[in-house]
Amino acid sequence: MPKDCAVLFHQADLSIHMRARGTHDLSAALAGIVRESRVASGLCTVFVHHTSASLMICENADQDVQRDLERFLSRLVPDGDALFQHTAEGPDDMPSHVRSILTQTSLGLPIKRGKLDLGVWQGVYLYEHRHAPHDRRVSVTIVGTAGEP
Amino acid sequence: MPKDCAVLFHQADLSIHMRARGTHDLSAALAGIVRESRVASGLCTVFVHHTSASLMICENADQDVQRDLERFLSRLVPDGDALFQHTAEGPDDMPSHVRSILTQTSLGLPIKRGKLDLGVWQGVYLYEHRHAPHDRRVSVTIVGTAGEP
Amino acid sequence: MPKDCAVLFHQADLSIHMRARGTHDLSAALAGIVRESRVASGLCTVFVHHTSASLMICENADQDVQRDLERFLSRLVPDGDALFQHTAEGPDDMPSHVRSILTQTSLGLPIKRGKLDLGVWQGVYLYEHRHAPHDRRVSVTIVGTAGEP
Repeated sequence: MPKDCAVLFHQADLSIHMRARGTHDLSAALAGIVRESRVASGLCTVFVHHTSASLMICENADQDVQRDLERFLSRLVPDGDALFQHTAEGPDDMPSHVRSILTQTSLGLPIKRGKLDLGVWQGVYLYEHRHAPHDRRVSVTIVGTAGEP
Repeated sequence: MPKDCAVLFHQADLSIHMRARGTHDLSAALAGIVRESRVASGLCTVFVHHTSASLMICENADQDVQRDLERFLSRLVPDGDALFQHTAEGPDDMPSHVRSILTQTSLGLPIKRGKLDLGVWQGVYLYEHRHAPHDRRVSVTIVGTAGEP
Repeated sequence: MPKDCAVLFHQADLSIHMRARGTHDLSAALAGIVRESRVASGLCTVFVHHTSASLMICENADQDVQRDLERFLSRLVPDGDALFQHTAEGPDDMPSHVRSILTQTSLGLPIKRGKLDLGVWQGVYLYEHRHAPHDRRVSVTIVGTAGEP
């Protein structure tokens, strides 16, 4: 039932070292931040502070899914495509920006009964689009209540 | 004017039976949940708990728009594409994941004067990407105030 | 540290006249709205009220990035594509809807220490997809606290 209720806010940063193009599962780290927040019912917004790495929610059971996705994106936005002028940092520079724009920079996730309410097959991933190693920053903003909504 | 103000939280789930690939207009159900919340000014976050169905905001007047969109996505991410290894559930399995990633898993919608403030031509849709029937879950998290912002 | 704390809400609208297909940097206007809100720690959700204009976070330093992105989208979703039936408003009508769906209608941005916490190279852009001039509306919903989270 809707009611006036005390509000909790929480923010936390994640620093992730990505060694190469590919994904990193953020789900466990996010679960920990939600626990720290003491929020039982609310909203968890995840944000990545970059334009050549992005966020996505993806199937978390069969590793072929992410391999297929990578093959799809590599075909859709080929490294070294002659279409692109912005190549200062190499053939994967502009494709990384395009891949970021076609996926997500922010995600809003529900918190229920003190946990992220993700679907059984949903994982939250950071997707590094550059081939070279990069340090990436993700921030998490939680607003909610300690009780039932 | 910004001011300290009592906060309302509200959460609700929607269960939608999708008979086949295609869209389902969530706008009326979302409007009802916003009414229940008694929030006059705030944020309504919609989330779908699946990786082969997704959310989108789409033109709501001419049914050709969604037919054209379906044709576009079917051409961009063809069922049965030989690129894909993840075919355990059939030729539309991996394309459904890709189509979900290219559209949305969460949406943040403004609430003003007690209603979702959507544009005149905006509808909020659940997009089922699998051909077989599926039961889908969407959850809605609302935070806001009973008065002016 | 999470704690109970007074909550601030703020909403504001932006009206942007777009003269043609292309982008408009919203970052400075959003920074002003965040200042007005007096929120030190929280969430800023941006929403565009249209289905043929969209939002994106994009590299903000080299103008070639947006030119390359436009070339990419024009190739991916060509104006006048014979695939499309919804052409009532011309050859860029349906492509504008598709381009909107492949980018964003809402974005959730963190506020920290009274400012949007964007990455160094991140700008928030309104992307007009129609060639003719259009007046576009963007709304901003802020929830947060005046102090530390």
